[in-house]
Amino acid sequence: MIGVAVVGCGYWGPNVVRNFSQLPECELRALCDLDRDRLSSLGRLYPGCRLEQDFERLLRSPDIDAIAVCTPVASHFAIASAALAAGKHVLVEKPLADTVEHCEKLIDLAAQNGLILQVDHTFVYSEPVRAIRSMLRSGHIGDLLYFDSVRINLGLFRPDVNVIWDLAVHDVSIINCLIPQKPLWVSCIGIAHYGRFESQAYMTIRYENSLLAHIHVNWLAPVKLRTTVIGGSKRMIVYEDLSPSEKLRIYEKGVTTSEDPDIRKRALVDYRLGNMTAPHLEKTEPLREVCREFLRAVDGGPAPLTPGEAGLAVVRILEAAQRSVRNSSDRVLLGD
Amino acid sequence: MIGVAVVGCGYWGPNVVRNFSQLPECELRALCDLDRDRLSSLGRLYPGCRLEQDFERLLRSPDIDAIAVCTPVASHFAIASAALAAGKHVLVEKPLADTVEHCEKLIDLAAQNGLILQVDHTFVYSEPVRAIRSMLRSGHIGDLLYFDSVRINLGLFRPDVNVIWDLAVHDVSIINCLIPQKPLWVSCIGIAHYGRFESQAYMTIRYENSLLAHIHVNWLAPVKLRTTVIGGSKRMIVYEDLSPSEKLRIYEKGVTTSEDPDIRKRALVDYRLGNMTAPHLEKTEPLREVCREFLRAVDGGPAPLTPGEAGLAVVRILEAAQRSVRNSSDRVLLGD
Amino acid sequence: MIGVAVVGCGYWGPNVVRNFSQLPECELRALCDLDRDRLSSLGRLYPGCRLEQDFERLLRSPDIDAIAVCTPVASHFAIASAALAAGKHVLVEKPLADTVEHCEKLIDLAAQNGLILQVDHTFVYSEPVRAIRSMLRSGHIGDLLYFDSVRINLGLFRPDVNVIWDLAVHDVSIINCLIPQKPLWVSCIGIAHYGRFESQAYMTIRYENSLLAHIHVNWLAPVKLRTTVIGGSKRMIVYEDLSPSEKLRIYEKGVTTSEDPDIRKRALVDYRLGNMTAPHLEKTEPLREVCREFLRAVDGGPAPLTPGEAGLAVVRILEAAQRSVRNSSDRVLLGD
Amino acid sequence: MIGVAVVGCGYWGPNVVRNFSQLPECELRALCDLDRDRLSSLGRLYPGCRLEQDFERLLRSPDIDAIAVCTPVASHFAIASAALAAGKHVLVEKPLADTVEHCEKLIDLAAQNGLILQVDHTFVYSEPVRAIRSMLRSGHIGDLLYFDSVRINLGLFRPDVNVIWDLAVHDVSIINCLIPQKPLWVSCIGIAHYGRFESQAYMTIRYENSLLAHIHVNWLAPVKLRTTVIGGSKRMIVYEDLSPSEKLRIYEKGVTTSEDPDIRKRALVDYRLGNMTAPHLEKTEPLREVCREFLRAVDGGPAPLTPGEAGLAVVRILEAAQRSVRNSSDRVLLGD
Repeated sequence: MIGVAVVGCGYWGPNVVRNFSQLPECELRALCDLDRDRLSSLGRLYPGCRLEQDFERLLRSPDIDAIAVCTPVASHFAIASAALAAGKHVLVEKPLADTVEHCEKLIDLAAQNGLILQVDHTFVYSEPVRAIRSMLRSGHIGDLLYFDSVRINLGLFRPDVNVIWDLAVHDVSIINCLIPQKPLWVSCIGIAHYGRFESQAYMTIRYENSLLAHIHVNWLAPVKLRTTVIGGSKRMIVYEDLSPSEKLRIYEKGVTTSEDPDIRKRALVDYRLGNMTAPHLEKTEPLREVCREFLRAVDGGPAPLTPGEAGLAVVRILEAAQRSVRNSSDRVLLGD
Repeated sequence: MIGVAVVGCGYWGPNVVRNFSQLPECELRALCDLDRDRLSSLGRLYPGCRLEQDFERLLRSPDIDAIAVCTPVASHFAIASAALAAGKHVLVEKPLADTVEHCEKLIDLAAQNGLILQVDHTFVYSEPVRAIRSMLRSGHIGDLLYFDSVRINLGLFRPDVNVIWDLAVHDVSIINCLIPQKPLWVSCIGIAHYGRFESQAYMTIRYENSLLAHIHVNWLAPVKLRTTVIGGSKRMIVYEDLSPSEKLRIYEKGVTTSEDPDIRKRALVDYRLGNMTAPHLEKTEPLREVCREFLRAVDGGPAPLTPGEAGLAVVRILEAAQRSVRNSSDRVLLGD
Repeated sequence: MIGVAVVGCGYWGPNVVRNFSQLPECELRALCDLDRDRLSSLGRLYPGCRLEQDFERLLRSPDIDAIAVCTPVASHFAIASAALAAGKHVLVEKPLADTVEHCEKLIDLAAQNGLILQVDHTFVYSEPVRAIRSMLRSGHIGDLLYFDSVRINLGLFRPDVNVIWDLAVHDVSIINCLIPQKPLWVSCIGIAHYGRFESQAYMTIRYENSLLAHIHVNWLAPVKLRTTVIGGSKRMIVYEDLSPSEKLRIYEKGVTTSEDPDIRKRALVDYRLGNMTAPHLEKTEPLREVCREFLRAVDGGPAPLTPGEAGLAVVRILEAAQRSVRNSSDRVLLGD
Repeated sequence: MIGVAVVGCGYWGPNVVRNFSQLPECELRALCDLDRDRLSSLGRLYPGCRLEQDFERLLRSPDIDAIAVCTPVASHFAIASAALAAGKHVLVEKPLADTVEHCEKLIDLAAQNGLILQVDHTFVYSEPVRAIRSMLRSGHIGDLLYFDSVRINLGLFRPDVNVIWDLAVHDVSIINCLIPQKPLWVSCIGIAHYGRFESQAYMTIRYENSLLAHIHVNWLAPVKLRTTVIGGSKRMIVYEDLSPSEKLRIYEKGVTTSEDPDIRKRALVDYRLGNMTAPHLEKTEPLREVCREFLRAVDGGPAPLTPGEAGLAVVRILEAAQRSVRNSSDRVLLGD
């Protein structure tokens, strides 16, 4: 039985705790937080769990095999690296760490010690994103033409990170999971309407073959939108994450380059107009899948969908985007 | 009585003809087109109008005071400049001309001859855009923070111009009418999915004081959207041009920088959440207003809302955007 | 070549005129209206057509084979019966006539003279309704469980008929075309909010086997809705006539009576949750199909989709509904 | 300090428990359920609470002042009457009881013993319904013309009650709270598509002055709707309970009887078209307000918004509707 501890009982931690507590593949043995009140308040729901304010003591506990890190981003590296050094498998909230360098060190540390390192890119485990990926892989969508995402609302102006690290991290993790090609460069323009952190940003990621991914994130919008449009040569997808039903709509629409010289002269392309289908999606909790994959990997099973390398790939793009913002949206190359 | 002729009876021309024919301030006297069938087909609805294939003869007609040019973009300059040289007042379909240089020459020509030159930026005359402008001018919206427009659909791949000159021209004309500040630079990334013309583009226009306008245009989208979001320090606007009712929604939402040091430390800003109002808008035909303003100006009244200079300002941005597209989205400065 | 005349150039007449004028199967030869201005104004668009204020003279014209009646409801019977008596085929705007008795007389007259009598139930010829009918006939939807229609808006308070004869006539014609069973009874409650005509009504039509059709019509609603929900044992349909795209949505949803005794005890039924599909529909003008079917029948082809009998069946239900309204919504039996 | 016990820990009970546990005006002292597992599972979250399978012992506990009854409908009367007989104040889940007679007995019993009896009509305590009521009372809406509610979805086929007692109970409680007039009669048609309980029903409630309330409830609909339209002589309201924002929209739309004889002859009424406003509503939990009002009344404060009499009034209408269903939708008078 895998012994699990969760570090950080703030906003997201309680969800991770709940999921591990319900999975039969592990035993949730300890909760850890510096804040005694938060710790005891959450602990009351899990009477079998020991509560721990001292992270060092947790690391020395032989009954803890794996640690989930749900603390603020700035502390991810310190906590995760200490846990790996102490021989614990580690699951880290997104983003994996605050810099590319820190991500690389965590990956190395995990590899050296033969430990699992996984990042919690929750959306990658959701039914809609899994369904899109499967349609892309099977050729159902045809060649990918563009990816356009809008993630806006009147959101919390976070005191520690800007809107890119808060919201665009989701889109970049989804893009990386869907688009197998290597990105060439990133360009990003960001505006800090109040305070010093950007509250609105437009990010462009350029791939070979004229493929473009574009992300609009905004903390200062009057309406809440989570809309992604994916253009393919055979079909097109609209993914509305906030829709209570029909989150995915697949359109049999598009254009085809015509052989007919008359059409070519006049309109260049032919138009296809067909059915729209909204596939039925199971209502799973993506975080439950994150935790199950982690436990399966710890138990010697296949590597998780989002290992440390997936976390690094996302942070590499966020870091480049950040550099672009500082340089008035100049392109930042993404070579290895 | 002002004598009017319309040149070009293709896609948009018949709408201009219909409006002039219904306005009591003028007499629609001639229709002109190179295509005899198109001309006679349209002419049948206006039996009092003479039909003219020879544009030169039209220019020599003393009963024609004003000419509306509804021909393809590439011919705007030649036709409009000939008309102005012949002493006719001129209304030109958007965009005013295909280059900044041509726009400037038309403006000069009109000024030298004391003639009216107006560009038909139809949206600028629409009820929703007029209402937004009035709210911005009155201070109702507060400081303008951003302008974000999405104009996408499975559109006709035009054989003569790209998606920027076809669709973004509308957004740029709206932006220019709403934002009094001078733009600093433009950046635009465009993709030609099929053929040689860009079918998707993201354009950014940067102003002073961290104000940003962003436009997404796309001929290859499965759904049709015409959505503009305008962020202000006091209120925010969502403008859905395709909505059959409630095209404008005004949100009493936003953030305010707090004086309270506790709030400042935690969240940086305070949130305002108030009513949403969708003002009742009259159902006018914007093109009718375009034609009326033109006739009023010809008759010695005030200058139209969109004189030649407005057409030049739009083409200046489109030209800069085009240059940016060719240079991988490099910023193009917009100094005079 | 079939010679056609249109009587009545008011609201709907011009649409009928336009369609007949464009169909190669006939020649539009005369327009007739008592109002000289209306007649000459419409006539200008059809210079080849003679204009006629005298209906009697029209009836005596040997070059007129068929007459379309687009006059107010109260005059349908007098005009159509005179036309039939004069040996002309007749197409009548909905409803066929103002009473069951009048409808029956028109049907008899047409039969006696071997003439075509068709009623213009436009919606029956529309792509969405045709598609629904085809799905019902093929068994795709399974057994029909219910039909629920909402047709509301802030509508014109008509001075001659109530909301039932103005709006519910559409729903009843659609229902009659979709549901092959004979209706047992009608119940209808109506309210006259202003004036003497009902401006809101709820109509229920009861069939055998617990099948129910229900219609809500309202001239006094703040929003415009044209929504029909059709429940079937295999699939369910939502038909939104105002939706610019995806007017039909087919849901693979429903319940099945379970064989499993455990489920039967607990929940009675099993739930099916599947894909939703919005079939692509051609954008045809339904009225064009009405006119084509009429001409085909006049030319000796198959009987039209909505012959006089279809008009009678609708008026029979409207008349019964009207009687129910007068009697506080008492059921009115619909035996033959 | 008021000592509270909750009886019934099934579907709704845990919400009631959570709310009482968080209110400082009381102490949650006991949970009671026949099912030991359910009891201990819920009890774990409230370690200070004693768990009780024996309802009789609970009645004898002197530290329990008030009891909330969250058991199946059929048991409401037995449990609530025993609690009142034992001198406990009682809050009962909707509907108050299964028959008018039982409701009346509970009211009598509470009155005789000077105890509070309240029914949990949750929607009545919600922000949207409170806002509508306040607008109706203040004259903002003008005279009430109609109330139309649609509450449909693919819902659980309940094994104990039909769709009227399951869903329409909400609408009737809302109607009773909004409409001060006495209802004259009820008519209801219901269909049992599967099994013996009605799964779809249309209910009409008739008031004086041509005011009509109409309710459509359906367990067999492919889409989930919770939409109420309220017509008033000055304004109209659309209430979409499922909308994540803008649940209420107030339309400055309507008609007015015109003084102008010309208008009267032609169209009978004048049309008003004005702004639409969606008022900002606080996000409160209605059940919390239910519990607070109950405690305040127990503590000697004002009577609750929904005392036993409100529960009786709702059951009176449901019972009449049920009788109407059995008699093919015959009207059932609602005299006292």
